This record gives sequence, C-alpha cells and structure tokens, in this order.
Amino acid sequence: MNLGTEKRIYDLGEGGMHLVHLLGGKGAGLAEMRRMGLPVPAGFTITTAECTRYLKHGRLDEGLVNEVREAMGRLEAATGKSFGRGPRPLLVSVRSGAPVSMPGMMDTVLNVGLNEETMEAMVALTGDRRFALDSMRRLMQMFGTTVLGIPKEEFDRATLRVARNNGPGSADMMDLDTLDGLVREFGEVYRNHGLEFPQDPYRQLFMSIEAVFRSWNSDRARAYREINGIDDGMGTAVNVVEMVFGNMGEDSATGVVFTRDPNTGEKRLSGEYLVNAQGEDVVAGIRTPENVYGMERRMPGAFRDLVEACDRLERHYRDMMDIEFTVERGRLYLLQTRVGKRAPRAHLRITLDMLKEGLISVEEAVMRVEPEHIEGIMHPRVEDGQDGSVICSGLAASPGVATGEIVFSSDRAIELSKQGRRLILVRPETTADDVRGMAASAGFLTQKGGMTSHAAVVARAMGKPAVVGAEEIEVDHIGGVLRARGLTLREGDVVTVDGTTGRAYIGEVRVTEVAERDDIDEFLRVCDSVSRLQVWANANTPEEVALAKRNGAKGIGLARTERMFLGNDRIGVVRAMIMSRDSEERRSYLDRLLPMQVSDFTEFFRTMEGMPVIIRLLDPPLHEFLPEKEEILERLSGPADGESAAELKKMLETVRDLEEFNPMLGFRGCRLGIIHREIYEMQVRAIARAALRVRSEGIEPNVEIMVPLVGHENEMKELREIIMKTFSSEDPEGRIRYKIGTMIEVPRACLVADRIAEFADFFSFGTNDLTQMTFGYSRDDAEGKFIRQYIERGILRHDPFTSIDLDGVGRLMKIGVELGRKTKRDLEIGICGEHGGDPESIEFCHTIGLDYVSASPRRIPVARLAAARAAIRSAMGSRES
Amino acid sequence: MNLGTEKRIYDLGEGGMHLVHLLGGKGAGLAEMRRMGLPVPAGFTITTAECTRYLKHGRLDEGLVNEVREAMGRLEAATGKSFGRGPRPLLVSVRSGAPVSMPGMMDTVLNVGLNEETMEAMVALTGDRRFALDSMRRLMQMFGTTVLGIPKEEFDRATLRVARNNGPGSADMMDLDTLDGLVREFGEVYRNHGLEFPQDPYRQLFMSIEAVFRSWNSDRARAYREINGIDDGMGTAVNVVEMVFGNMGEDSATGVVFTRDPNTGEKRLSGEYLVNAQGEDVVAGIRTPENVYGMERRMPGAFRDLVEACDRLERHYRDMMDIEFTVERGRLYLLQTRVGKRAPRAHLRITLDMLKEGLISVEEAVMRVEPEHIEGIMHPRVEDGQDGSVICSGLAASPGVATGEIVFSSDRAIELSKQGRRLILVRPETTADDVRGMAASAGFLTQKGGMTSHAAVVARAMGKPAVVGAEEIEVDHIGGVLRARGLTLREGDVVTVDGTTGRAYIGEVRVTEVAERDDIDEFLRVCDSVSRLQVWANANTPEEVALAKRNGAKGIGLARTERMFLGNDRIGVVRAMIMSRDSEERRSYLDRLLPMQVSDFTEFFRTMEGMPVIIRLLDPPLHEFLPEKEEILERLSGPADGESAAELKKMLETVRDLEEFNPMLGFRGCRLGIIHREIYEMQVRAIARAALRVRSEGIEPNVEIMVPLVGHENEMKELREIIMKTFSSEDPEGRIRYKIGTMIEVPRACLVADRIAEFADFFSFGTNDLTQMTFGYSRDDAEGKFIRQYIERGILRHDPFTSIDLDGVGRLMKIGVELGRKTKRDLEIGICGEHGGDPESIEFCHTIGLDYVSASPRRIPVARLAAARAAIRSAMGSRES
Repeated sequence: MNLGTEKRIYDLGEGGMHLVHLLGGKGAGLAEMRRMGLPVPAGFTITTAECTRYLKHGRLDEGLVNEVREAMGRLEAATGKSFGRGPRPLLVSVRSGAPVSMPGMMDTVLNVGLNEETMEAMVALTGDRRFALDSMRRLMQMFGTTVLGIPKEEFDRATLRVARNNGPGSADMMDLDTLDGLVREFGEVYRNHGLEFPQDPYRQLFMSIEAVFRSWNSDRARAYREINGIDDGMGTAVNVVEMVFGNMGEDSATGVVFTRDPNTGEKRLSGEYLVNAQGEDVVAGIRTPENVYGMERRMPGAFRDLVEACDRLERHYRDMMDIEFTVERGRLYLLQTRVGKRAPRAHLRITLDMLKEGLISVEEAVMRVEPEHIEGIMHPRVEDGQDGSVICSGLAASPGVATGEIVFSSDRAIELSKQGRRLILVRPETTADDVRGMAASAGFLTQKGGMTSHAAVVARAMGKPAVVGAEEIEVDHIGGVLRARGLTLREGDVVTVDGTTGRAYIGEVRVTEVAERDDIDEFLRVCDSVSRLQVWANANTPEEVALAKRNGAKGIGLARTERMFLGNDRIGVVRAMIMSRDSEERRSYLDRLLPMQVSDFTEFFRTMEGMPVIIRLLDPPLHEFLPEKEEILERLSGPADGESAAELKKMLETVRDLEEFNPMLGFRGCRLGIIHREIYEMQVRAIARAALRVRSEGIEPNVEIMVPLVGHENEMKELREIIMKTFSSEDPEGRIRYKIGTMIEVPRACLVADRIAEFADFFSFGTNDLTQMTFGYSRDDAEGKFIRQYIERGILRHDPFTSIDLDGVGRLMKIGVELGRKTKRDLEIGICGEHGGDPESIEFCHTIGLDYVSASPRRIPVARLAAARAAIRSAMGSRES
Repeated sequence: MNLGTEKRIYDLGEGGMHLVHLLGGKGAGLAEMRRMGLPVPAGFTITTAECTRYLKHGRLDEGLVNEVREAMGRLEAATGKSFGRGPRPLLVSVRSGAPVSMPGMMDTVLNVGLNEETMEAMVALTGDRRFALDSMRRLMQMFGTTVLGIPKEEFDRATLRVARNNGPGSADMMDLDTLDGLVREFGEVYRNHGLEFPQDPYRQLFMSIEAVFRSWNSDRARAYREINGIDDGMGTAVNVVEMVFGNMGEDSATGVVFTRDPNTGEKRLSGEYLVNAQGEDVVAGIRTPENVYGMERRMPGAFRDLVEACDRLERHYRDMMDIEFTVERGRLYLLQTRVGKRAPRAHLRITLDMLKEGLISVEEAVMRVEPEHIEGIMHPRVEDGQDGSVICSGLAASPGVATGEIVFSSDRAIELSKQGRRLILVRPETTADDVRGMAASAGFLTQKGGMTSHAAVVARAMGKPAVVGAEEIEVDHIGGVLRARGLTLREGDVVTVDGTTGRAYIGEVRVTEVAERDDIDEFLRVCDSVSRLQVWANANTPEEVALAKRNGAKGIGLARTERMFLGNDRIGVVRAMIMSRDSEERRSYLDRLLPMQVSDFTEFFRTMEGMPVIIRLLDPPLHEFLPEKEEILERLSGPADGESAAELKKMLETVRDLEEFNPMLGFRGCRLGIIHREIYEMQVRAIARAALRVRSEGIEPNVEIMVPLVGHENEMKELREIIMKTFSSEDPEGRIRYKIGTMIEVPRACLVADRIAEFADFFSFGTNDLTQMTFGYSRDDAEGKFIRQYIERGILRHDPFTSIDLDGVGRLMKIGVELGRKTKRDLEIGICGEHGGDPESIEFCHTIGLDYVSASPRRIPVARLAAARAAIRSAMGSRES
C-alpha cells in the first residue's frame, strides 16, 4: 500500500460505521450520527493506523502533524471559531476510540485550546467567568494527569488545600476567587514537577493526541484486552471534536441514556444526567446524577430531541443504544453512541421485543443471545424468609446470586482465586484497574456508584451478580474491614450478594430456581424453530426426567440404571447379588431387583409420554457397589449389631477379588454383561415389562436400550442376540418396538464403527470416557495433578473434559460418524457425555451431523440455544463458501 | 456350472499337482508320479466335489456309480486283471486323500475285491495260501471296522481266541489252519452284529467309497481341522488303486522313507520298512520296522530304484519328500508322496542346503521357514550334569524341552489346560483321537512307537518336544500310573521331557540357551539381505544390550531408564528424591543419581558401538518406586532397626499423596517431566555426559532421546526446548549429534501426529499402552478377567497384547504414520511395544512403512525372519496387483 495516499484523517461527515476498524467505535458512531443528520458537534478522527504507526516509531509523523493542522483549519471554518484565539475561541475534546469497546480504559482530554488568552476570550464571549475558570481547572487537571502523568492525588490535595482556606470543599461550589486560586494552585502542582502548563494550544493538542495513542499500551488497557481476548495490534483512533459545554449554567447539562432499560429490558429510556457539569462527572460518580426523565420538565426541548434521537438511533442500529449527550444552553448535542451493555435478562427481553417489532430477524435474534446470557438468567434467586441475614441493601446492578469469601483488593482476588477459592470483591467503588480482580471474583459489592458506574457496567458485561451503591456499608479496603449493620467482616468471611434484589447476606443462603421463565421459554421456542440438532437429557431419576421435560428435552439420551441400584432399599440386594457364588445364586437376587427396576422404568416411560428414552445397561465395575476395603476392615474389628463377621469376611473377599489396578479400563460395561449375562437379562426383562405396562395405560413407549463400553463388533453382536432373545421372552408378540444401540466411548469403537453399526440401531458418544482414553487422562487423577497446570502453561487451550478436544477426540468422533453412517445411512447418533451441555461442543456436534445432544436437565436451555446458533452459523458458512 | 460336464473321476495318468484341490494330496501325488514315469500302480481318483455332493445328499449319485464301474473297466484293461474273478483277480485299495494333509485322520480299506472265489484264484495264481488268507483277514478286519463300524476290539479278541486255541498269538505267526480259522472267526464277528461280509466285490467297493466320504465328518477329522484351521467344506477325494502286495513273502516289503533326515536335516535317506507286511503295519507300530538302508542288502534292485525315485521326486518338488512304497516280489511301487514333515532344526538345515544346491531361491528359502521354526530351534536344552534326575531314555522325536504336570488322557489334558496348567501328556502310544489333547499339552512322552509314529509326527508338526518309544517305562493310563526306574508317578507330578536328547527327567531341571547357532545365523543373514525393516532391541541393562547385539540387533529401540532406578544402591536415593518437599531438595538427590545414570548410559553407547540407542526418559508414576501402602503400615507397626517412624510416616504420606484411581492414565510420562522438569534435566545431563565420555574414547555415539506419553504437540514443544537447553549446557560446542523423539502410545498422539512431528525427529509406537487405551483394557486387570474368555467365545480373534489389533490399533498407527510423514517425509518411525517381536505384527509394521521394529533380545531372530518374509510378501503382492 502506498502510505502517501492512505487517508489518515476523516472529518466527521466523511466516515460511518463501515469504517469502524479505522475510526474506532466512537469516531465511527459520531460520523454515523452526523450522516443521519443528528446534532453532533463538528470534528475529525485520526485513524487507528496512525496509532500503530506512532507506537512503532515513538513520535508523531511529520505528515500527520500537517494534516492535523489542516483539519483544524477546516474545523475553524466549519464552526466559525478560532483555535487559540478570540473572539470565539475553538476548544476541542481529544478522546480515544478503539474499534472494540474498552469502557474507561483509555484517555480523554477536554477543553483543549484553553489558555490564559482564550480563557479571557471565553469570559468575554459568555460573560461567565465561573464557567471559564471551571473549564480551565478541568483542562489543567486532565492534561496534568493524563498527558503528563502527574498523580491525581496531587490535584485532589491542591483542591482540598484551596477549599479549606476558602470555604466549601468541592470545585463546583467554590466562589470565583477560590476557583481562580485553584487554577493558580494547579499551576504550582505543575511547577512542583518541573513542568509548565503549555499555553500553546497546538502543543496541548499534539501532546493530548500522543497521550491517547500511548494509552493503548497502558497496563490496564493491556489487561482488559487480555481478559476480553482483544487483538493488541488493533490500535485506537483519536477523535478531535469541537467542545460543547454542559457546564454553562443551569440550562446546560450532561448525561448518559440507554434507549431501553439495561437491567430489565423494558422499552423506556433509562439514564441519568447532571445539570451544569461536564461528561466525566457522570461516569466518575462524584456527584449523584438525576433520572433522565427529569429533563422533560427542566429542559423540555432538549428532552424531546433526545427522545427522537434515541428512537432514530435504535432503528438505525437495530439494537438498544447507549448515548452520551450534552445540553449546552438548552441545545442538545450527541457526543457518543454505541450498542448498550445490558443484563442478560434485559438482553433477552430486548431481543424478543425487537423480534416482535420486526426490527430483527429470527436468525439475528438467536445469534444475539450468547449461551452466557441464558446462564446468567438461569441464575437462581435467594429464597424468601431469610431477611434476618441481610447485611445491606443497594442497587441491583447485575442479577444473579453469588456466595463467596470477602476479598478487598483485586490483587488479592487474583491470588486467592488461583487456589480455587470463590470470592466476592468488596470495594468502595471499582475502576478500570479492578477488571482483572473482577474477572477472578464471583460477585461484587460496592459502597458507591450508580447503575452506570464502572462496577455495574462491568458486572453486567461479565454476567456476574453485583450490588452497587450500598451506601449504608463502610468499606475500609486498606484496613480490610467491611462494616454493615453493626457487623465487622474481614477477608475470608463468607457473604452472598443477590444482584437481582440488590441485597447482600451474611454467609451462604438458600437459593431457588428462577421462577419466571416466560421469556426464556419463548426465546427457546424461537431457537428450536431453526435448530436441526435436538436436545435430549441425561436423567437418572423420575425427578430429573420431569425437570428435563420442563426444560424442553425431546428425549432421554442417557438413563443410567446403576444409580437405581444405590437406593437404601436396594443396595443390600445388589451386594448379595455381587457376592453370589454362582450365576444361579446371582439370578435369585436379580429376581428381587427386577420389580424395582420395572417400577423405575415405568415412571420414565410415563413421564416422557412417547419421547425416546435411552436406558443404558449396567456400566460401572461391580466393586463400586461394595464398601471400601478400609471400611470393611474397620467394621470387622468391631461388627455392629446384626452384622455377622462371616458376612463381612465374605464381602472383604469379594472386594479383594474385584480389586483392579485401573478400574476405568477394567471389568465393566458390556464386558460384565457378556461374562455375567444374567445381569443384563434382568435389566432387559425389566425394560420390557415396564414398556408393556405403560403401553397398557395408553402411552406408546419409545424404548432404546444402550450397551456401554463396546469396542468390538462381536460384543455388540453377542449382546444384541441376548437382548432380543430376552425381550421376546417377555413380549412374544412383539408389541413393543425398540432399538438396540451402543455408547461409543472407547477409541477403538470409533475406528471400527462401520462394523459395530451392523449390530446397532443407534450410537451415543460417551465423550467423558472417550476423552479419558484418547488422552490417557484419568479424570479423577489428572484434573488436580496436571491438567490445571497444563492449562496455565498454555499446553492445553482448555479443559478437554469441559469442551470437546476437536483435534483428537473430535477427529475420532468424526471417523465414528462417517463409518457408522457408511453402514447405516440413517443411523441415529447423539452424544451423552457432559460435553452435550457445552456450547462449543454442541456446535461441533452439529457440524459432524449428530442428531441430538443429551445434556444434564439444567443445561438444556443453554444447549437449545447452542443448537440453534450452530444451525445458523453453519447455514451462514455454507452460504459464504 | 453344468454338473453333467464336470469331470468326476480322473485316471491316475490324467491328473497332477495342479489339481490338488480336486484330487487331494494323495491322488494328485500319485498322478504326478505317474506323469514322471515313476513306478506307480494303476488306478483312479474320485474328486473332492463328489465327497461334498455325497455328504449333502447322503447317498452315492447314480451317475457316479456308473462312472466308477467304467473306471474299473479301464483299470481291468490296463492291468489285465478282472475285478471279482479269476484267473487274475483285480484287488484295489480304497483310500482317502484331502487337499490338505490330515495324517491318519481318515480311512483306508485294502484288498477290496477279495472274496471266497477270488481268494482261491489268488492261491492258484500265487501258490501262497498264507498270503491269500492274510490278505483276506486284513480286508475283513478293515472293512468291518472302517465301513461297518464294528469295534476293533472284537477282531482283536477274536484273534486272541483263535491264537490261544492254536498256538502263536499274532496273525503273522499263525499257521495256515489257524489263519483259516481266524477268517471264519471274523465271519462270526460280523454275524454277531447281524451282518455278513459282502461277497460282491462292487458292494465292497461302493461301501468303502462311502465310508471314506463319511470319514471326512468323523469326530477326530473335525477336531483336527478345527485345530489346524482347515476349511470344513473342502472334502476328501477317494483313490482306488490296484493293490500291490508287500506281504507276498520275503522278497516283498512295505515302508516309508524321507528323502532327507527329518530330525537333523542331513542329506541322506531316512526311513523304515517291514518285510512281508502291508502298509498299515509300519504306521501302526505293531511290528518294529528296520532301517531303510537294510534294503540295500536284502533287495538291492528295489533299493536302487527307490534311491533314484527319491532323488527325482526331491528335484521335482524342490523339497524334502515323504514317500510310501511297497516292494512286491522284488519290484518297487510308490504308493504315496508328499512334502515331508520335519523338525524345525532339520527344516532350517534342509532349506539352507537346498538354497546352496540351487534348488530354491533366496525368497523361497525365506518363505519356507516359519517364525515357529525359529522358535522351535531356539528352544533351550537341558544343562549337563543332571543325569541323576533322568527317569527314562527313548527316541528324540521332536526337539525342545518342556516341563509340566503329568496327565494320562487327552480329555483330562483339555480340562486342566483351561485352568492354565502346563502339562506333559504321557501315553502308551497316541492315536488320531489324541490330537486335541496334544494341542492342550506342552510335551509328550510315549512308551511305544518309532520316529514315524503318530506321536512323533504330530509333535514335530506342532513344534512341541516329544520323547517316544521309551520302552523302559510302563504307562498304565487307566490306573493313572507311570512306572520308571523304580519310581511311581501320578497325575500332577512334574516331569521334564527333552526331545532333543530323548530323555525325560523327574521335576523341573536347569536349561540352557541353544549352543550351536551357525545355521540360524547363516539363515538370518540370508533374511537380512532381503529385509527393508530393521530389527532393533528393547534392552534395559548392559547385559541385555550385549545379548541383543549378539542376536543381530541394529540398534536399541527402547532403553527404559526407570529400571536403572530400582537397583539396590539406588532405590534409597530415588525414594528420598520422590519424598522431597520442593524442587530444590529434589535436585540434591537427583545430583546423586546423576553419576549412576551416566555410567549406565556410557555402557550402552560403548556396547552398541555407534548404532542408534534410544533412551526413554522416566515414564512410570513415581509411586511405583515406593513400597505398597500396606507394607509401610505393617512396618510402622514395628519399625525395624535403623528405620525411623518419622521417615516411614513421611513415606506413607507421600504414597497417599501419589495414590491414583487409574495410575495407567495418571501422573506419569512426560506429564511428570513437565511438572517436575528437574528429573528430565538430570537424565538429559547424564545422557550428554555419557555420550561425551564415549566419544572421547573414540566411539561416535548415536544418541536418541525419547519422551514418553506425549498426547499434545505442546508437550513435545516444551520438552524439546528443555532437552536442548540442558544438552547444550553440557555440550556447549555441540559435539554430540542427537535426535529428540517421542513414543506414540496415547491414541490422541496418532490423531495429531502431524503437529507432534513438528517437534519430533522420530516416533516410536508404544503399542502396549496404545492397545490398552484404544481398547480401554487395563492389561493387568483384563487378561485374567475377560480377555481369555473373549478369545474362547470368539469375540476376539487373538489377544491384542500379543498381536497388533489391525482394525483398531493398527488403523490408529496408520493414521499416525501418514500424518507424521506429512510433516516430515523422512521421519524415523519404529515400534517398541512387545508386538515388535510378533511376526504378524511385524508384517503389518512393514506394510505401513515403519523403519524398524524393536523386540526383546530373545525375539530378535524371529523378528529378523518376519521382517524378511514381510518384504517378500509385499513385493509379491505388488507384483501381483
């Protein structure tokens, strides 16, 4: 590319959202608004490419300097003002704006162009010395801290010093002389650092531009990008915009507004404004702002314009917008717009509303909702009747409930979280420096700040519960003490924050499932309408089956029969069965288990009302049903009443007999079923009887029988014969139609899936075991011993037990699907490992053509969304390619 | 196919070896000999297809009956004799002959055509009533037992009865009247069964043909086919051949000869003959035969013809032949020829001799020797100086040494072998009914029979040690007692048979490696000349390295460093290292291990003299170096001298800490090396120092460092860096060239081999672990608990830990090779699992393009042969395709 012809500066009229990579979000947004004819001050944007160039060379390019001067000339012409001179001095704001939103991460300098000369001109022009002095001290403070790096405390201390000597203690309440003295005192602060506040406006301008460029590489900006996965090479644009003043008196104001409620999603403006103030006052939370609807009375014209602008922007962007504005002497100016951050529940409401309003399509609606949103909404609430534990009430800034240990600093939060501790970060207020600490915590509690404060915005973005502005508490973060309603809490004390109600509790409290789910259900129905992949559930008890169905499961992908063996009424019989000397004795105990299994399965089939139910035959090694060796030895040393030593010794002998070096890879699954076929025969008999019973009640059951741990086609062949023979003996007329299939969970099964498919009506990937064997990781041993360290060192990108390892396990699955379908084109294939509830994994399952994913009942909503998103993404992919 | 045009009967002049599938081995051999102009009686062969047809329909086909009559007509014409009439009656033998040799499995009837009328004609013709009567009683006995199913005992009893009343007790010593009485007595035997010996010669013939057909499905024939993997559908042919008589007096004889010595391979005839006898007398071992060279004096003309026939047949078949012959009144007739069975050592000698004689090519020589032959030869011998344990001396019928418990019946052998017992079958003599029992035993000892007796032939074919004809012992198999040199042994007593010397010993004796190996070495050099795949060795100690080299290893494919940790002088330091609190303490103990490892590695590099040595870094989980928990607990209850309780408690704590549910899939291999990198650093340092030391002695070491258990490319990447850094710190000038590679033993590694290859200079398949993980079989647990049963039930074809599972593990290996070589075309790839010594697996390794197989030092000879055979087979395959 010929750099000479590259456009380095765009006047606000020239750009638009399509250039967001060059102009940044803020610049592109301003340009877009100007193109729409909305009231936006004049200005220009220096592209992100210049930032990259600056950071590379360490200085402003000669050519850029000239182009900025030319742009300033055009700005002077457009505004009829002059930069650095009266009678109408041009002041500008210099603000950063990256292509991706990094709220509060980078720097801003307002009122650039003000010096002794232009200040006097401003006084002459406005007749308002207070305004001129206020603007001057703001510029000096922002320039001093942002551009020159003078600690903010020094300006704060100077302010206190001047105020103490002269009356009221905050700048906006000072009289003129005191303000004048403050400006002079600020000059002293500069001189104490051997510096001088530059009177040359162009020096102010260029130094500010450089400061913005440099801010891209500040520690906190880098940290934010790391956490949010933003490319470091992107760079920030610089926006130079004519100043408009919200601090020109009682008919001026500055504010922030969301076009819909970011917390509930309701279709009404939501925002705050401050009269006679400049922009940073609202965000910083120094003065408490008023509700934006207050403007309707105080400045009705500006309010009307604001409402109209909100409406137009929303329809233009087809999303809920976050807008910064200033009213200068009754006239509205829009200073920024972007898509507004919102709580997950609000996001869902907004998405559904916009879909109904026709603003967005079904596909857009589905793609706008991330799995994390659903997770966020599914957060439980605190149960009623625990008011006695409340320690404070504040703003419900980000919904959900989190319990954890108190921690008072971000550094400490990062440290403790590495030990696996669950933390609640408690701060007076949060700043951009806290983002890493917030990422390491489960919830937040702050003493100060409103619904648009840093803590609130970040919490909603992270989908973590937050209570902010709980002014009744006192946070001494240096001393490490939280005082609330007479309690004194310290680091490590456990609290619960409920961001849905705005309350915090001492200790852990009882929580309940989300109660209102109309929105979720409505939205998930939308999802289902575009999905190809069905969502089934892993459920082992009738209760879980019921929950699964309520959450929208279309079938039971995995019912583990062994969990039924563990009931109090059963475990004794199960143990006697295991300790049987021969298969005859074993059969007698199995006969006693039979009616119990019949009643479990009957309940399953009843609840699912004809949807598919996959029942997996016994899988775990038999020793899992016996007590630990150590326990038996202990009981042997002093048998309790009714426990015979002979019985215990027999048990011990059996346990020793069944002992294995690597039980994961041992005598379990279909290996058991083949060697002790009477166990599987009993289970199949129970399934058949249950199915017949339910059928006689008028429900046609949809039975699928699954054999675990098959690795060789001959296992499947032999068991298929046994199952069919046993089933026929119960249902000789063949009234029940059923399928026989297998878990694919041994690597070898994937490699010979074509042969296995000859004897299987369906496959279900058991990705837990498949991952264990493909990696050679015993999950119980590996998670603590090396997997976590592997992830920290970057050897593994993520935990393969959470998200399917596409390169290894995924490749095997693909082979399994291809081979399986080579033998049977319509082979039903699903997944029943825990990955079935993981969005990334679900997308993969869609890609390789599975029919369903089976997830735990609680994960079903997220899985339904993920299934829909996968369908849309793959349709987009195939359209694109 | 039009059955009408199918040729059902071949006269002996028409066929040849190319029709062996239709004519059977015997028929094709006779035909071939006739074509060569050798002295073979006239006759014809009914094809195997007729056998199949007969067994299907249960009766002889009308068409076949007619064709047999026609063929008999041609035979009459050719011989100038008439069937069923004088003056020159035609007698025939009716013998079975399958396409695959099934020695003694099926039936034979001699002298068919003899009845009262023709017997008198024979007397008139030969003037020898004794001969005629002897032939008659033979026919009646064979026809009675074979065709009509009359128990042989009844004829035996009848013989005894007649003899008791009349003098000498065996038929060949009876006088004429007694013989005549015997024939009449045999008639009584028939009548006792309500039967009559058929006087109609065609009835005799057709009933005999049917009996031969039926014998294909006899129990013993089925058993033989099952054991030897012969297709049941093949069927047997029937040979109808003019009788020639070895029982026509002192100038007649019958015998068996091998063209070379079947026990040593020496190039001289080896065989036995009986004067005045018919064929079955030799095989049955009723009379003791004489050495075939005895013929030279007694019937020089026939002997000269025999020697010439042997020579021609050997050159024609290009193999050592086994020939049955009869001399009728001085004239030689060949009755059968086939490739002779021989002991493995003899086979090797014969193969090498024939190669030198130019009879066969290098490829033929290699393909004729099976891995089992090499295994057979490599059988150890009994060490000298144990003569005190000898219980008998007999014929050295099949070389090798076997120790086991005595068992007296085949049924019992089958039963006990299922319990995994090692058995020696002890019998008076063996018959075809014993084949299953012999398969279940490790060695054989018989009281009777010669070098061509059933026991001797079958033992050599099975490659199992046998001592036969040990006449000094007394075997009472009914009473279950073996009496020998004053001892009385019973079932379960342990004996050792040495088939190389012909001795048996009481109990287990010391054995030694085969001493003479000139033949083997010579033959393996022939093998190496055609191999592509190299053979390396798995060796962990300098002694093993030396043996490997002696056996012809071209490199060390796997040296396990952990075995070096277990020495008495080291284990204490190793344990202290493991129990270290931090990596600093650990390093201090590692520093003490360093010089020990340096000296081990130095020895390796010295012995291998520049051949590649792959040293694998530490692999097993650390707890393997600590005592068992139970042991520590016991020691804690009463600490021995010098053992502090505190130390034991610390050990216990460490053991508990390291405890894993599935150690196979746990914290081991490179996972250990990454988390505790100081261990690998010590080992790499030791390798570098050893290499430098050996280099300074003038040997350029060929160093390969292998990382175990890699499953992700990032593991390899990180460890490669650590290894290179550590190596450089010892060898900063880079004097030693070395490779860094990895075991491929985790399924995932095969699937991402392309990525791993970016950081690896070589791969080595660790098929033991790869098999465990691909199947999900923990070898320690599964072998006893279900794998054996799986093989018995036919779920698995063989033990996947013995022979690579081609469908699953093999497919993964193929993927691994393809992906690895995609990244690095010349990537060195080998195998170091135990499969590296298994012939079937070696052939597979050749097929997928490995560079070498690494086997245990003792398996190297077999591996070298297998590598050569694989190369030849694949060359043949590619020529064919």
